[in-house]
Amino acid sequence: MRLADLAAEIGASLEGDGEIEIDGVAPVDAAGPGKVTFLANAKYRAALAETTASAVIVDRSEPVAGPAVLRSDNPYLAFIAALSLFDDRPKPAPGIHPSAVIDPSAEIGAGAYIGPCAVIGAQVRIGCDARIYPNVTIYPGVVIGERFMAHAGAVVREGVQLGDDVVLQPGAVVGADGFGFIPMGVEPPLPIPQIGTTRLADKVEIGANSTVDRAAVGETVIGRGAKLDNLVMVAHGCRIGDGSLLAAQTGIAGSTKLGRRVMTGGQAGIQGHIELGDDSAVAAGSGVVAGVRAGSTVAGYPSVPISAWRRSAVLIRRLPEFFKRLRSLERRLESASEARKPDS
Amino acid sequence: MRLADLAAEIGASLEGDGEIEIDGVAPVDAAGPGKVTFLANAKYRAALAETTASAVIVDRSEPVAGPAVLRSDNPYLAFIAALSLFDDRPKPAPGIHPSAVIDPSAEIGAGAYIGPCAVIGAQVRIGCDARIYPNVTIYPGVVIGERFMAHAGAVVREGVQLGDDVVLQPGAVVGADGFGFIPMGVEPPLPIPQIGTTRLADKVEIGANSTVDRAAVGETVIGRGAKLDNLVMVAHGCRIGDGSLLAAQTGIAGSTKLGRRVMTGGQAGIQGHIELGDDSAVAAGSGVVAGVRAGSTVAGYPSVPISAWRRSAVLIRRLPEFFKRLRSLERRLESASEARKPDS
Amino acid sequence: MRLADLAAEIGASLEGDGEIEIDGVAPVDAAGPGKVTFLANAKYRAALAETTASAVIVDRSEPVAGPAVLRSDNPYLAFIAALSLFDDRPKPAPGIHPSAVIDPSAEIGAGAYIGPCAVIGAQVRIGCDARIYPNVTIYPGVVIGERFMAHAGAVVREGVQLGDDVVLQPGAVVGADGFGFIPMGVEPPLPIPQIGTTRLADKVEIGANSTVDRAAVGETVIGRGAKLDNLVMVAHGCRIGDGSLLAAQTGIAGSTKLGRRVMTGGQAGIQGHIELGDDSAVAAGSGVVAGVRAGSTVAGYPSVPISAWRRSAVLIRRLPEFFKRLRSLERRLESASEARKPDS
Repeated sequence: MRLADLAAEIGASLEGDGEIEIDGVAPVDAAGPGKVTFLANAKYRAALAETTASAVIVDRSEPVAGPAVLRSDNPYLAFIAALSLFDDRPKPAPGIHPSAVIDPSAEIGAGAYIGPCAVIGAQVRIGCDARIYPNVTIYPGVVIGERFMAHAGAVVREGVQLGDDVVLQPGAVVGADGFGFIPMGVEPPLPIPQIGTTRLADKVEIGANSTVDRAAVGETVIGRGAKLDNLVMVAHGCRIGDGSLLAAQTGIAGSTKLGRRVMTGGQAGIQGHIELGDDSAVAAGSGVVAGVRAGSTVAGYPSVPISAWRRSAVLIRRLPEFFKRLRSLERRLESASEARKPDS
Repeated sequence: MRLADLAAEIGASLEGDGEIEIDGVAPVDAAGPGKVTFLANAKYRAALAETTASAVIVDRSEPVAGPAVLRSDNPYLAFIAALSLFDDRPKPAPGIHPSAVIDPSAEIGAGAYIGPCAVIGAQVRIGCDARIYPNVTIYPGVVIGERFMAHAGAVVREGVQLGDDVVLQPGAVVGADGFGFIPMGVEPPLPIPQIGTTRLADKVEIGANSTVDRAAVGETVIGRGAKLDNLVMVAHGCRIGDGSLLAAQTGIAGSTKLGRRVMTGGQAGIQGHIELGDDSAVAAGSGVVAGVRAGSTVAGYPSVPISAWRRSAVLIRRLPEFFKRLRSLERRLESASEARKPDS
Repeated sequence: MRLADLAAEIGASLEGDGEIEIDGVAPVDAAGPGKVTFLANAKYRAALAETTASAVIVDRSEPVAGPAVLRSDNPYLAFIAALSLFDDRPKPAPGIHPSAVIDPSAEIGAGAYIGPCAVIGAQVRIGCDARIYPNVTIYPGVVIGERFMAHAGAVVREGVQLGDDVVLQPGAVVGADGFGFIPMGVEPPLPIPQIGTTRLADKVEIGANSTVDRAAVGETVIGRGAKLDNLVMVAHGCRIGDGSLLAAQTGIAGSTKLGRRVMTGGQAGIQGHIELGDDSAVAAGSGVVAGVRAGSTVAGYPSVPISAWRRSAVLIRRLPEFFKRLRSLERRLESASEARKPDS
């Protein structure tokens, strides 16, 4: 693709030779001739100075020397547009593979691709343009909106409800039984039947091998546009607000409610039966054991406001010095007291 | 179902109108007319006051005003009985789907449901009334007791032994090779063949996408009635005692032994080659690096008795104040020493 | 097998009766007559004194009394050789099951076993002697070297490249879409197309239910001989160096680079966009938020050199004592100051 055409396609203004041929997108530290790259993180500005990429997408004010430059008011959106142009990953054509097993009572919308050995249970309803990869299992009674995409090995348990544009990465499990057992002393713990369900709103994405359990009663809910990374655990009865972003290996215990646009870093853990307000955030690796106010960011375990955590974290490293200073004070007081003794 | 009938079915005494029609169970903060609810957590007592549920299950002494009341000596068990009554999730009828692939040498007990694309290897023996969902894989030589339930995508590796009433949630993996490699300097680490196996006793449940590795030699063992939540990792050679409850994302390194009824919170991590006594507990997010005495609860990383951890956790937050007080003492001593100098 | 023959097979020198019959390998604390065992961990030296095993593999200098002894310069390698001799786990014979679904355009090398309901997409190329277990999914365009082993339920997404001798444990997912979304305020976060790929070099092993995401652009790379335990997350754009060993539930955020032979303990977390040098190590449960120098070991969260972390960890436990001593000093200074007042 000519660079000038690329610029037009992604709505960027061009500085440099529009005749250059562009054949792909590459990260700034690995891009070479023929590639367009992108400054996404200030850490890579130095690498940008040395890139041999043919062009770079930046914002209006970025000082750049060297390759051709594509300037955009929103370089992120321009970058996404460029990625889409060069996305050559194979897409399956509509069609149902003969080895797929679809219950006769299931209703599948037009335009679906259903891959080999995918299994779709009784009374399932799926909207149009679904893409269901091999070895996916949809249990009976599941209701799914338009443009569903389920990658290989994903599992949707009985009666789960999914909105439009839901994406399940490989191995994602939606609607497994919640972890509810009553300890019985010397007898095995007694399972609490998990008769509730799970509901994912429109535009929810669940990462590879993540699990969103069904509720004991009622629903576990993932709000509109919320995205879960890989190996995330959402326990029974949780409600995750619209647009929340949960990074990999986050775990959320039962009945906890996250507001809208909550963000968690990787390996964050959140206790059950608490609430996190809209636009709150949890730093990676933190353990949240109490409610979090809207708009605030917490860190540490037990978590505290991130500024307080940072102060404590620095001081923990200084504890050895601190103990020495304390010991020194004690010695000075002792020697002072010794020194005074003869006078008394 | 009439409320009076429900009361009789679950063995509760009724206060209120037995003619009310009940059509389901719901959580206290989402229950409406026609629903029976349950006070499971004192946090929800306030919500109970405002519920529009038609009835509530409580213990003998709970003060309740408003809806009809079902009193039970053990409201948890009564609640479970009510859940079972209203459990309308579809259950598969016995029968083997023609697309399931069962080795001719496998022996399957009466009453089994085996779903589409489930695969059962040579010499496998499975007891009666098994329920094996689609896309499950049972490797050769596996021996399984009665009433086995394996949800979609679960995998049981070669030679694993499972007792009666074992439940595998979707994507659970039992008997994968343990992580054993010998570093070889500049050459790739050398794999240690994992020739042992895994044994799950009766009434064990393994959560969605959890993994219980086979032993290098001997067995990895999960004791009777132990329950693992989702995304739990049990490494090769571990022994988990009867009735233990391991919350989501717990990880246990190789050859560690947990006693009976050990409980771990979410994201707990336990080092290899140590022992945790009967009825011990590990708080969520903690890292255990040494043995734990029977009956004790530990927290933190490295973990200490939970009371000590709580004291330290509070004091960590006070470190900034602490440093200030130390600095203030130092200044006072310095100025005192300055003040004395003229006298000397 | 006669013990003398075993000794010869594993290249060990024999002390004791070579006519003893050996029928298996067992851990030191569970071995009985007929078994050969192994001293792998000094913790088990006491157990060795009490073992009823028929023979034990040790190094040249280990003092051992009791059973027959097999001495080796490298007892670990001798132990591996013994394990291989007694590895009687069933291995599938070459052959393609009729229920496997292989696209006509795929090229599969000689000697392959392909199990029931395995699915292999268009344009896939796989080297000789592959072993692909049931319900595995290989997406279109994947290129794989010799002796590939993929356990049940593993998924390899489109266009991924795998070297020779790659092993995927059950449920491993390679090449799922990276977690890239742009927050859009009240609108759902916008997905960044993940058009890059994933490459695993020779002799890489990925643990059960682990996930290695594809890059947004370019490649996610796992170096030669690197081994990932179960439930490990490697995010988009990471590069893991040759021979690295990542223990279970480790998580590595996007674009981070690990050098050669990096080791992480279980549940370690590593921030995105940083570098860890060759032969560095991260203690279990630690959170790394900055680059780590080659050869160094870090611990804690935020991580520091492990010796510093150990000092701090000890002192954290002493904080209550510390606060008391501080308070005591303050009181002494106050009373001293009170005592001086009358003189002034």
